[in-house]
Amino acid sequence: MGRVTERRRVIRIRDGAVTARPDTLVAEEPLEIRLNGKPLAITMRTPGDDFALAAGFLVSEGVLGRADELANIVYCAGATEDGSNTYNVVDVRLAPGVPVPDVTLERNVYTTSSCGLCGKASLDAVRTTARHPVSDGPEGPMLLEPALLASLPDRLREAQRVFDRTGGLHAAALFSADGELLDAREDVGRHNAVDKIVGRALQQGLLPLSGTVLMVSGRASFELAQKAVMAGIPVLAAVSAPSSLAVDLAAETGLTLVGFLRGTSMNVYAGEQRIALHERAAND
Amino acid sequence: MGRVTERRRVIRIRDGAVTARPDTLVAEEPLEIRLNGKPLAITMRTPGDDFALAAGFLVSEGVLGRADELANIVYCAGATEDGSNTYNVVDVRLAPGVPVPDVTLERNVYTTSSCGLCGKASLDAVRTTARHPVSDGPEGPMLLEPALLASLPDRLREAQRVFDRTGGLHAAALFSADGELLDAREDVGRHNAVDKIVGRALQQGLLPLSGTVLMVSGRASFELAQKAVMAGIPVLAAVSAPSSLAVDLAAETGLTLVGFLRGTSMNVYAGEQRIALHERAAND
Repeated sequence: MGRVTERRRVIRIRDGAVTARPDTLVAEEPLEIRLNGKPLAITMRTPGDDFALAAGFLVSEGVLGRADELANIVYCAGATEDGSNTYNVVDVRLAPGVPVPDVTLERNVYTTSSCGLCGKASLDAVRTTARHPVSDGPEGPMLLEPALLASLPDRLREAQRVFDRTGGLHAAALFSADGELLDAREDVGRHNAVDKIVGRALQQGLLPLSGTVLMVSGRASFELAQKAVMAGIPVLAAVSAPSSLAVDLAAETGLTLVGFLRGTSMNVYAGEQRIALHERAAND
Repeated sequence: MGRVTERRRVIRIRDGAVTARPDTLVAEEPLEIRLNGKPLAITMRTPGDDFALAAGFLVSEGVLGRADELANIVYCAGATEDGSNTYNVVDVRLAPGVPVPDVTLERNVYTTSSCGLCGKASLDAVRTTARHPVSDGPEGPMLLEPALLASLPDRLREAQRVFDRTGGLHAAALFSADGELLDAREDVGRHNAVDKIVGRALQQGLLPLSGTVLMVSGRASFELAQKAVMAGIPVLAAVSAPSSLAVDLAAETGLTLVGFLRGTSMNVYAGEQRIALHERAAND
């Protein structure tokens, strides 16, 4: 439980010199997510924040949208043959009256370190249905200065405690529209880091996350764009490249998608009305 | 079909200067894999090499181990309501007499850009059963010089054609024990790049891939280690960090696992007998 890192012996080769020493690795273990007692999904994750991960996974799947729809989450004892608690199985109980998802979710699904959107039966079902609008929030339209966006990667990196020791983690952070760090999570799976942030927000009654910016350490895939949309997050910023389908989903849903956010440079792929563009070249 | 990249409009911000221009993005689309006509899995992938991807996925799942177990693979027409061929659905037909996998695979499974090992019903089932030994090959024990390993990341990068245009791809390459490049593939999903290499090798009758080195552009997760083992590959080398579970699986199965392969430096986490270690420090 909470084993974020583990120690293993490693042989280091540096310019021909060979040394053997203990090394710190990021922990990766399976987490089985049960819904009202029924196995739903298995994800390869870094232990810790497991309840938030389970809650966030169910937000991404469209099962949960508000804190009062969640009754409680527990670790399952007796998950092994000898009845011990591995802390690798959680059961999410929905509040009375909350509809249990349809049959396409009532399946055991195995997902790996970087798989978050599992349990879909057909191509049509790849897209989950938004529970919340992607909205700027009660304070009116967001208008983010590029300089503020440019400061986020360094601040995400500062928040990455485990990466410094292992180099093996993806990270995600949630910022307010004025750049305040609201939450940051690390995981071997980038989708897990986002699910942990979204799940924590659900537990705190903060969904939809209108008026926020989600920053991720890697690429912006379709699934990460979809997770932002499902949580009502209006801006997704990534250090690396987006995929075509992530851009298409952002354009469809009104999500602002920023990629290649490095130094003072960035690319805006969709939702540019939320970025303060002070200057435009002649070829625009 | 084969749309490896797509064009989208992007607004570039560079040190305050704003320009709008077309940008090349890596394509991401769902691929539904059917087995003997029954939907088995959906993976988010970069189009291209789809038959190899499907074959390699089934090697990883333990369904296919030899070329003669595969009858054929076809794109399914009529995959949409209007009967058109999206080239996003493939059907894999097993040769007569080849056992269709058990019920844990007979499920629709949705997998994302970075998820390859899906369809498992329990924690115990996370580990697939090896069809091939991880072996050094007919030429005897492998003994790789660190200098040879150190040359592989640059050669992997040279083989990455699409990355140069999009920056959005994971890559995997297969090398012989003397460093010859045997195959290289790119995909939005790192597991897909490996599946494409393994599937191509199966189609060519080259499994098990004894005496080879699999090089991957990112981290070494449990799933990538497992894919190497399932294909009989004895050495997995990664540019970035391995996870704890990847190291444990490598140690159990006899896989040599090299991480942080950068410049002339690398870490050997398991199977060190295949690495030529000329010098050892006193603390070994």
